[in-house]
Amino acid sequence: MARLVTRLTRQLGIDHPVLSAPMALAAGGALAAAVTRAGGLGLIGGGYGDGDWLEREFAQAGNTRTGCGFITWSLAKQPHLLTAALAHRPAALMLSFGDPAPFAAEIASAEIPLICQCQSLDHVRQALDAGAAIIVAQGGEAGGHGHRRATFPFVPEVADLLAHESPDTLLLAAGGIADGRGLAASLMLGADGVLVGTRFWASREALVHARQQAAALSATGDGTVRTSLPDIARRLDWPKPFDIRVAANDFTRRWAGRDEALKAAIEQEAPAYRDAFAAGDPDNAAVIVGEAVGLVADVPSAGEIVTRMVDEAAVLLGERAQSFLS
Amino acid sequence: MARLVTRLTRQLGIDHPVLSAPMALAAGGALAAAVTRAGGLGLIGGGYGDGDWLEREFAQAGNTRTGCGFITWSLAKQPHLLTAALAHRPAALMLSFGDPAPFAAEIASAEIPLICQCQSLDHVRQALDAGAAIIVAQGGEAGGHGHRRATFPFVPEVADLLAHESPDTLLLAAGGIADGRGLAASLMLGADGVLVGTRFWASREALVHARQQAAALSATGDGTVRTSLPDIARRLDWPKPFDIRVAANDFTRRWAGRDEALKAAIEQEAPAYRDAFAAGDPDNAAVIVGEAVGLVADVPSAGEIVTRMVDEAAVLLGERAQSFLS
Ligand SMILES: Cc1cc2nc3c(=O)[nH]c(=O)nc-3n(C[C@H](O)[C@H](O)[C@H](O)COP(=O)(O)O)c2cc1C
Ligand SMILES: Cc1cc2nc3c(=O)[nH]c(=O)nc-3n(C[C@H](O)[C@H](O)[C@H](O)COP(=O)(O)O)c2cc1C
Repeated sequence: MARLVTRLTRQLGIDHPVLSAPMALAAGGALAAAVTRAGGLGLIGGGYGDGDWLEREFAQAGNTRTGCGFITWSLAKQPHLLTAALAHRPAALMLSFGDPAPFAAEIASAEIPLICQCQSLDHVRQALDAGAAIIVAQGGEAGGHGHRRATFPFVPEVADLLAHESPDTLLLAAGGIADGRGLAASLMLGADGVLVGTRFWASREALVHARQQAAALSATGDGTVRTSLPDIARRLDWPKPFDIRVAANDFTRRWAGRDEALKAAIEQEAPAYRDAFAAGDPDNAAVIVGEAVGLVADVPSAGEIVTRMVDEAAVLLGERAQSFLS
Repeated sequence: MARLVTRLTRQLGIDHPVLSAPMALAAGGALAAAVTRAGGLGLIGGGYGDGDWLEREFAQAGNTRTGCGFITWSLAKQPHLLTAALAHRPAALMLSFGDPAPFAAEIASAEIPLICQCQSLDHVRQALDAGAAIIVAQGGEAGGHGHRRATFPFVPEVADLLAHESPDTLLLAAGGIADGRGLAASLMLGADGVLVGTRFWASREALVHARQQAAALSATGDGTVRTSLPDIARRLDWPKPFDIRVAANDFTRRWAGRDEALKAAIEQEAPAYRDAFAAGDPDNAAVIVGEAVGLVADVPSAGEIVTRMVDEAAVLLGERAQSFLS
């Protein structure tokens, strides 16, 4: 198997510049550990903060080194979860969606590298102020929550900002990366590595219902939308400007443009949504994937995904890149 | 100067896989010819169809080989403009924003390669049906009109479709490409070359007011929006689902979320907008640029832009790519 060396692999002591995203509910200890064992780094999804779940998933990862990620505005309601996560000595602690400042000191004093996922240049500056070691530049094509910048131009714009203001801070690209092409392209755009969600969501180790995964295999990138409907149905009070990218389905079509109507009907709709999600019903609960779902055609092991991605990127950065140079 | 060889350069007989976009009003003969002379291929922007303008700009390009592009739904109102353009024996004829079928036969019988710019997988299939030699996969981060897919995942998804259904059809990436990083990344994603708008809009040869260009130099990608407001103000009847990406400014903020109010006030607002545009007023008329404007820091000659882009991409695909392979 090929190896890809960047500042990220050296700094984190890993073989490949590939991190799996801390996907709420979907990224447990088994997924994170499988990614680490394949030479990347897996992040456990601390999500909306369930302390028991978190302990269980760290236990699942066993002695394999993993990181952990939290949804910042949600962590603010239960800051003790950060202390609990840090007690596991994660390889990195990632914060997304909110100001990282209140948590920066505790993470720094634990000497754990802070990763901040950013959706705008303002977020990047906030992350630098909080002492982030690694910035994730996330494009709006990403699965799950995010905002509207696009990965392709956002990554080099953030790279330029870091080059001027904080050259030792590393940069990951996120949003739309599902194979070796995306990994190689990210490195060309100036990233030190990638953070990948959707592709690992469709892996054997992900905590995702098989019916949902099966539905995703026939979805295209065209068929995804950004919406607030799943958050309304789940009674999650997401702050502006974030919404969530999902595959369009009966649920999103039924309520399209009718956020207020869903809120008005929430007493019936919330339990119906919850039951549909629990049953893996891909028509009546959100299938949380990004545009990269159009590049996903199977549900392999997470380790296989890392290997394929790196092998393909190595060929592209080697022979293929050379073929363009006359 | 470096050279970059792809299927596109071989097929079109050019030195570099870089095409300048047929930007309505902004891409005249001087810009197109400058791009061709630098080793790429420049496209004249046929835009909304002004026959005299088109003749003048073909004359400006002189003996330098250029291509030409039309806005398909607008061309349908004046199909004789296609005949006029083909009489100049353009290196390629590009159609965007509408079904190319009605024009395909005339272009084919002139033996001019047809380029179709596409915003969805359905558009790609339509373009293949029309016999397109080259598909442009355009992401919504692009300047000017477009739709919502993002370049990063859209390009490889289209590459996969072409590989299965029409492997001899070439693929260009468009949207967010402004430097060698974007060019190198596009080739890694599976494109045979790139179509670039915003970066050439900010060139000396572009038919763009200097005040507008000056305003763009301080804009960031975060500060661009997709909107219909400029089309309403210009009384252009753009079909769904297309809207236009521009830099947010006083004009877009004043009417944000108030399309209907602008329509109601159009008798006063249309002339005011037209005068502001003519004066290059960057606050009261649209500055038509994409997210890549955040990567634009100067207004060099178009030839210089091509040279920089290719030289940077060559280093990235050479030394830099090798540096990742251990
Ligand atoms: C199912 C799913 C759940 C996600 N949950 C979270 C989360 O809890 N916290 C977070 O920071 N990011 C979350 N994300 C976003 C990822 O961190 C990442 O930005 C995204 O997956 C990258 O784009 P991609 O899906 O195209 O790979 C989630 C993504 C998916 C697909
Ligand atoms: C000022 C401007 C005008 C444009 N006009 C047209 C047009 O008339 N026809 C067309 O096919 N595309 C047009 N485009 C879109 C380009 O073809 C291309 O998709 C886009 O510029 C690529 O993204 P970029 O701006 O990030 O390079 C225009 C783009 C800009 C910036």
